[in-house]
Amino acid sequence: MEQVGSRADTPLGVQALCFDVFGTVVDWRSSVAREAEALLGPLGQRLDWAGFATAWRARYQPAMEAVRSGQRGFVTLDRLHRENLVSVLESFGVADPAETLIDALNLAWHRLDPWPDVAAGLARLRRGYLLAPLSNGNLRLMVDLARHAGLPWDAILGAEIAQAYKPMPAAYRRAAELLDLKPAACLMVAAHNSDLAAARAVGMRTAFVPRPTEHGPGQTSDLAPDAAWDFVAEDFAGLAAQLGC
Amino acid sequence: MEQVGSRADTPLGVQALCFDVFGTVVDWRSSVAREAEALLGPLGQRLDWAGFATAWRARYQPAMEAVRSGQRGFVTLDRLHRENLVSVLESFGVADPAETLIDALNLAWHRLDPWPDVAAGLARLRRGYLLAPLSNGNLRLMVDLARHAGLPWDAILGAEIAQAYKPMPAAYRRAAELLDLKPAACLMVAAHNSDLAAARAVGMRTAFVPRPTEHGPGQTSDLAPDAAWDFVAEDFAGLAAQLGC
Repeated sequence: MEQVGSRADTPLGVQALCFDVFGTVVDWRSSVAREAEALLGPLGQRLDWAGFATAWRARYQPAMEAVRSGQRGFVTLDRLHRENLVSVLESFGVADPAETLIDALNLAWHRLDPWPDVAAGLARLRRGYLLAPLSNGNLRLMVDLARHAGLPWDAILGAEIAQAYKPMPAAYRRAAELLDLKPAACLMVAAHNSDLAAARAVGMRTAFVPRPTEHGPGQTSDLAPDAAWDFVAEDFAGLAAQLGC
Repeated sequence: MEQVGSRADTPLGVQALCFDVFGTVVDWRSSVAREAEALLGPLGQRLDWAGFATAWRARYQPAMEAVRSGQRGFVTLDRLHRENLVSVLESFGVADPAETLIDALNLAWHRLDPWPDVAAGLARLRRGYLLAPLSNGNLRLMVDLARHAGLPWDAILGAEIAQAYKPMPAAYRRAAELLDLKPAACLMVAAHNSDLAAARAVGMRTAFVPRPTEHGPGQTSDLAPDAAWDFVAEDFAGLAAQLGC
């Protein structure tokens, strides 16, 4: 039996696919909006739920930047999400939320739904390649998401394992190292041009799969590739076709 | 939907199962013997194949001890296996083996067969618990084994992720930390009493599943529990029954 991840006849010699998750694999915005409404609605809150999700997510990059810059040591995304949740609840006027409510709502990120093409696309891709998330989400968050959304990962890679948040080079390098592959044998799949630029900088191959409604109907960013990425596909089915699966 | 790994009603509050792999999940001895015969037999070698597997494995603990003691930095088990293979081939009189042959034979450890109860047992256990290997094998080795043997892991944990070989406490502690669980919510499943003792020392729960032919028909070690482990089961089906799956 030929070993997956050891074939020489794949396009560009790619053996493993590393996936950005938030936005690329799962639709965080509508899922977080739904979860927030499910938990806060019964308490009488009437918020702009999509706006609440967007506001929570807006605190994501600044929180990681404090870790990247060395201002604080590595902490998990679950912890950063929770800190950000406390402040976004306050900014939306939700007064004195119970600690148990905050904990429960923070798990919204563990129950995000995949885009419609993901389950079938990953199943096809897994026939020919090793698959792993390379996300800033911590390991347990990725495990729970995989269970919730049926994501057939071979391993969970990413920021917590590397103790470095993307786009720091160590996050990508450590993933390739743990797969025992050269970066050039790893294909980073993302809906974000900046993620692909960082992956390319360490020698990984790149695939752009746009998600034009990640940020809602008025999205203006990442609608098209802004560099000559190795692959550009409309969705995971299209990527599977290009990769010979 | 209740989240797997967050239930309160499991025996002893266990949420995740961490598995020793070599010996506990897979039958390394007969598998390595088979792989060695398949690769060396056609070259005219007529070795005691089971003896070859045993001799290779006998170099396992001393090689890891050099890392544990700090005599050398962390290197993967694939690398230790390869160094040990070179010396065991020499001791069996296999003269001047090609580098490509050594590389191919070293991958024998990526193609070990599971014990007969494993596939069905893990499928049952996965309904109620998070499952991960906590092995001294490196991540890629565990990924390949999972593909070969159909092991439905939620994540790959173990020595390489922790940069510490069992039975060092860090190997166990890091696994619990990455699962975002207290050690007491993690159940170490092993066919080796020493592994369970080390897991218990950091606060994990323990399950002994003897594999009385791991070392062949004349095995004398680990035939019975040598301490009052939390669970003792004949096989993974028995463990699943005890754990309510």
